[in-house]
Amino acid sequence: MELAQYAEPKQTRSRFQNGLDQLRDCLIAMSRNAEHAVELAIEAYQLRDSERCEAVLQLERKINEDERHIDEIAIELLAMQQPMAIDLRFVAACMKINADLERVGDEAVSIARRSLNELKLPEAKLPVSIDEMAKAVAGMIRRALDAFVSKNAELANVVLEMDDIVDRMNMECCQAMVQVMKESTEVTEQALDALIVSKNLERVADHATNIAEDVIFWVRGIDVRHNATRPQVS
Amino acid sequence: MELAQYAEPKQTRSRFQNGLDQLRDCLIAMSRNAEHAVELAIEAYQLRDSERCEAVLQLERKINEDERHIDEIAIELLAMQQPMAIDLRFVAACMKINADLERVGDEAVSIARRSLNELKLPEAKLPVSIDEMAKAVAGMIRRALDAFVSKNAELANVVLEMDDIVDRMNMECCQAMVQVMKESTEVTEQALDALIVSKNLERVADHATNIAEDVIFWVRGIDVRHNATRPQVS
Repeated sequence: MELAQYAEPKQTRSRFQNGLDQLRDCLIAMSRNAEHAVELAIEAYQLRDSERCEAVLQLERKINEDERHIDEIAIELLAMQQPMAIDLRFVAACMKINADLERVGDEAVSIARRSLNELKLPEAKLPVSIDEMAKAVAGMIRRALDAFVSKNAELANVVLEMDDIVDRMNMECCQAMVQVMKESTEVTEQALDALIVSKNLERVADHATNIAEDVIFWVRGIDVRHNATRPQVS
Repeated sequence: MELAQYAEPKQTRSRFQNGLDQLRDCLIAMSRNAEHAVELAIEAYQLRDSERCEAVLQLERKINEDERHIDEIAIELLAMQQPMAIDLRFVAACMKINADLERVGDEAVSIARRSLNELKLPEAKLPVSIDEMAKAVAGMIRRALDAFVSKNAELANVVLEMDDIVDRMNMECCQAMVQVMKESTEVTEQALDALIVSKNLERVADHATNIAEDVIFWVRGIDVRHNATRPQVS
């Protein structure tokens, strides 16, 4: 009888640990899809390629499925009895990161839609470097997920700093595109598309920032878990 | 000894139930702040009022505090042992609604920033009805939260239908503003501000849609709780 009592929690813990690993792996796979969706969308915009636009729409459907699956895994894990506080923080962080990655997919779709709109318009040479901004944003998503995988709050902090750079790039792009719209009305729509793509990228950067903040919330939870003051539910 | 064994779960359940009520009440209070922030931001934009802009920024800080507080309550609740599956779905839905409401606050701030930008520019008469769109969007947030409070999946479905109307309004606004930018370059920036405010409102509508979907997820959980197939954590 005593043996059975000891055996059960061990088995439960092991199943719980497997579930946590599965949750992390699914989230990493989803983040690759989200990152790839943004890359594809930017390529579609720059190369004026409708096939890549279609690929983004397909990938976003996959990302939406990923989101639902990850939420279900998270809820199943939470349904297991008495997970430790740090595991709860991990699961909560995963649910929040999940929501952000799903919205990265939405931004990729928005960029793909702009790209499809561009196909109807003559190609315009605009004084803007979407490519540079896209690289900076991709670096933020990559680093935010690296911080998640390696439980590295310092790396997560780097992502927060990078957000300011992307914000500045977006502001410069907006100013340049307003100038173009004022001076060259024949490319108003193309300049507006560039401005919107820039804003989409800036939002992807915001999501990467949210993810980095969630990683810090989780990792700091690890650091302070014995001293943390927890809110009282009345 | 037997009495104590029976007393403990009852007490825990009651404390848990109080916690669920607290979570719901906090979320309702936060939703009022988020809705008010959007209203204030639209008033600020229409009345060219910097004081209302400042009020939006203050309210958004309060909304961010609300978000953290609600997450902490949710995690505390999840830390209690063996909550029922339907309660877990409720807590998970609250966490997702929480994230959406926080982003509604962000959109209100973005509108307030556009309003501050407008103060630097001459007033322009534009062929766009931001007011009508703002009313539709406010109705969506209100109904999404009503659906949450009354556990009403049908009302949540109405919100999903309203999203199409707001999307159409946004598209019409964008087309009209592009036309203005092409024809009247002296008001390019004002037309761009209107276009961005319209896109912000469309995103608020997206968040209301997300909230309605979360309500449906939760309420369907209630309906199917005896038949539900739950995912297996390997």
